[in-house]
Amino acid sequence: MELTAELLHITAGGRRIAILNDETASTLGVHSSDRIRISCNKNEAIAIANIAVHFPKNRIGLYEEIAEILNVEEDEKTDVQLAQLPESLSHVRAKVRGERLREHDIAKIVEDVVERHLSEVEIAAFLTALNIYGLSTGESEAMSRAMVATGETLSFGEAPILDKHSIGGIPGDKTSILVVPIIAAAGYTIPKTSSRAVTSPAGTADRMETLCPVNLPINEIKEVVSKTNGCLVWGGSLELAPADDLFIQVEYPLGIDPLLLPSIMSKKKAIGATHVAIDIPTGSGAKIKTMTQAYLLASDFVDLGKRLGLTIQCALTFGEQPLGCAVGPALEAREALSALAGNGPPDLLEKATSLAGVLFEMVGVENGRQKAEAILGSGKAEKKLREIISAQGGKAKVKPEDISVGDKVAEVKAKQSGKILFVSCEGIAQIAREAGAPKEKGAGVVLKAKLGDPVRAGSVLFEIYAERDGKLASALELAEKIQPFVLSRKVEERMLLDQVPARVEREKPFMLER
Amino acid sequence: MELTAELLHITAGGRRIAILNDETASTLGVHSSDRIRISCNKNEAIAIANIAVHFPKNRIGLYEEIAEILNVEEDEKTDVQLAQLPESLSHVRAKVRGERLREHDIAKIVEDVVERHLSEVEIAAFLTALNIYGLSTGESEAMSRAMVATGETLSFGEAPILDKHSIGGIPGDKTSILVVPIIAAAGYTIPKTSSRAVTSPAGTADRMETLCPVNLPINEIKEVVSKTNGCLVWGGSLELAPADDLFIQVEYPLGIDPLLLPSIMSKKKAIGATHVAIDIPTGSGAKIKTMTQAYLLASDFVDLGKRLGLTIQCALTFGEQPLGCAVGPALEAREALSALAGNGPPDLLEKATSLAGVLFEMVGVENGRQKAEAILGSGKAEKKLREIISAQGGKAKVKPEDISVGDKVAEVKAKQSGKILFVSCEGIAQIAREAGAPKEKGAGVVLKAKLGDPVRAGSVLFEIYAERDGKLASALELAEKIQPFVLSRKVEERMLLDQVPARVEREKPFMLER
Repeated sequence: MELTAELLHITAGGRRIAILNDETASTLGVHSSDRIRISCNKNEAIAIANIAVHFPKNRIGLYEEIAEILNVEEDEKTDVQLAQLPESLSHVRAKVRGERLREHDIAKIVEDVVERHLSEVEIAAFLTALNIYGLSTGESEAMSRAMVATGETLSFGEAPILDKHSIGGIPGDKTSILVVPIIAAAGYTIPKTSSRAVTSPAGTADRMETLCPVNLPINEIKEVVSKTNGCLVWGGSLELAPADDLFIQVEYPLGIDPLLLPSIMSKKKAIGATHVAIDIPTGSGAKIKTMTQAYLLASDFVDLGKRLGLTIQCALTFGEQPLGCAVGPALEAREALSALAGNGPPDLLEKATSLAGVLFEMVGVENGRQKAEAILGSGKAEKKLREIISAQGGKAKVKPEDISVGDKVAEVKAKQSGKILFVSCEGIAQIAREAGAPKEKGAGVVLKAKLGDPVRAGSVLFEIYAERDGKLASALELAEKIQPFVLSRKVEERMLLDQVPARVEREKPFMLER
Repeated sequence: MELTAELLHITAGGRRIAILNDETASTLGVHSSDRIRISCNKNEAIAIANIAVHFPKNRIGLYEEIAEILNVEEDEKTDVQLAQLPESLSHVRAKVRGERLREHDIAKIVEDVVERHLSEVEIAAFLTALNIYGLSTGESEAMSRAMVATGETLSFGEAPILDKHSIGGIPGDKTSILVVPIIAAAGYTIPKTSSRAVTSPAGTADRMETLCPVNLPINEIKEVVSKTNGCLVWGGSLELAPADDLFIQVEYPLGIDPLLLPSIMSKKKAIGATHVAIDIPTGSGAKIKTMTQAYLLASDFVDLGKRLGLTIQCALTFGEQPLGCAVGPALEAREALSALAGNGPPDLLEKATSLAGVLFEMVGVENGRQKAEAILGSGKAEKKLREIISAQGGKAKVKPEDISVGDKVAEVKAKQSGKILFVSCEGIAQIAREAGAPKEKGAGVVLKAKLGDPVRAGSVLFEIYAERDGKLASALELAEKIQPFVLSRKVEERMLLDQVPARVEREKPFMLER
């Protein structure tokens, strides 16, 4: 059927959609969400039909994505036909029915996600079904491979290529900024890509960005790595496993994360890593609540790694409180830099040398932990980080106090005396975000007391940093409301732990960080 | 944050969305799918944010739906803030996690679906989760009530108000066109609303439309019913349970139908029915394949009816082949009219009088079936249908041959002799659609042999009617390919029933008819 092109001159956020009037759609036999084949100038595009009542008849509304493919001008004639549904949609439907998918089926789905032939409705149904049924190891492998195959892959030369990754969930976790230079200082290659915060107060890319540029093109990253053995860059623009970004767009509003394993593993595979330490913070406020859950997840990582030809070691780490004291991009960068100079909080130092030690032992170094401590203690790790900062375009001699943090500061004090019994990771993360992190890099929280510390009434529990007065005030208000620190109390003072249904309904914050 | 309005001058198909540049979104702390509150001219709207890279900074792109609410002009200043996620989204997430929802939760979801505060991604996740977990009876009740509460409700005077509904799936099922006049002729009120075909070759509204107008406003429907006791109109424009239409838009591409029960029952409740006969065609090619499945579904209907204050009887009917001989809007209207005049296929007459009998007995009439037969035999039912046709604006004296059918006709003949062992409902439906039905009302199929009939090689199995040569040819080609009739064969001639995986992959057609 011949329809006249109407250029809408706006993008549809990458979606391949076109608009039809309802009567025109009915004549074509097209229902909402059906695919149409649009031909013009010997070009052809498949689009998903959006049907609108007030759109003019016998015209087709083209967003820029489709108009570009067709190379079409305003009022040009196009030929429009009902197209077959993509094969991948039948696999999506099979998964909704609970069927197991074959490698081929999953590859088709991932291809069509990247090519934008599946709508967000269909992707949402697929991810919801995966979230409910879970993935078999075979499906996880197929998903990882398909995500690698549809994106860029990198190579940093001869094996071993080391890497580390945390599944996230613990505010203040700046471990990578210590581990990468320790490993690189020992002569091993560790090209670390990191994410920015989505729902947390800081991602490693946000932290590093207060020290040097992190958004580097691939050729510059390769140069940095060949010069220094390591890097600490943002992975977001590298098109490694781009399907994942499209999945995340759908997972985010739904608060689900069914692809945790393939998402992480595909990126490690794409970057050419051979030996990866996976950090699984475990604790009541972390993503993984119990050791049992952590062991299950760890064995899934190890199995999947074997199938993909990667050597994996999982580190189950203490995740009952924020790591170190600083939370927020700039505050954390300061803390990491001080820690490398020998002046860091003991839990951060212990975690970083443990993880570096795991990596060393994976590549055959004995007493890995001691080796990591020695490199850290000798100042070689600090020197290496400064090399990396400089290679990425930052100031090699940056001092912690050069990193600017928010100048609006408030203290939150203990209302009673006691021992710190509980620190809410979630609560601290929310307060830091309310103060402006990660967007305002100087905003965040600094803990002045940690688990087990004795405090007196009136002593400072934590400080809030902000760049703007309004943000400081609202972060303080939130801190007052959610009370992230719990001091010891005798059982007979409060037997009631919680009530169901809750007296005040509050959705748990959802952590989607990769 | 102040953003300048950019009117897009197109509708978003009812969706409430607005477009932000990615940097502007990041400054606002808005991710794709987050809600934003837009204020302008003392008006306020909540929209779902779509983030586009090439959209200009510091502007907000407004589709007509939002522009209208705000009453905003091009380049006017608006205030835009990140808004809270709707409460209903936390209930959607709870259902994805497998939690049971309370009546209040479901009411909130349905309200937000109708108000367009939930995105299609979120609705898709909700429906997928319902499809996987199933609904408890309590959830079905809450869903029905919420769907009634968010739409129009009608009243046709004193009880009893009778109604019938088929869950669909059998081509050629024109039973309603016989049942309604039988019931109305006996003096009972039966205001029947029907749907148009979505994936089938004809809905009752499509069939009736070849006899008289079916798209009547509510006041005219009331007049028709008060004059004749009955009507046969299209329910689509009455805004009964409008949430259902929005759910269907998402269910259709996914091939799922988790809301079958609440969808049907909410519409019956909204129209004020008190006694409803539900037809459940059962057979290997129908929606419901086995008697066990049919009994389970029937008892769910009865339970849900009790909770909603409706008296329900389910009729499990033979669904192994198309009903009667004609398939396609005009062909079926012809057949129904002939049947009322005493000249109909026996299975159609038997089914119609059975169902009318069930309805009579529900309101206390003894020997309902005999009463239905008597009314049909006396010509009173035909007279009543003609009254209804006339009241709805059609020609009272219409003869079957007045209804125009396609003038391109082809015969499909038996290749061997034997008894008809199987007629594929799905196959016949697909061929009729390929011939042009339901859009081309004269297109369809007429069966010349039915289950159990002996045929000789070369005798006609069925005819295909079309309005256009091209359609006739492609329907014939499809008929040749799918061979919808199976003739008896001895077991030793073919032991292999099927192969897995299939030699030819073919997605089963999905039936979504209400």
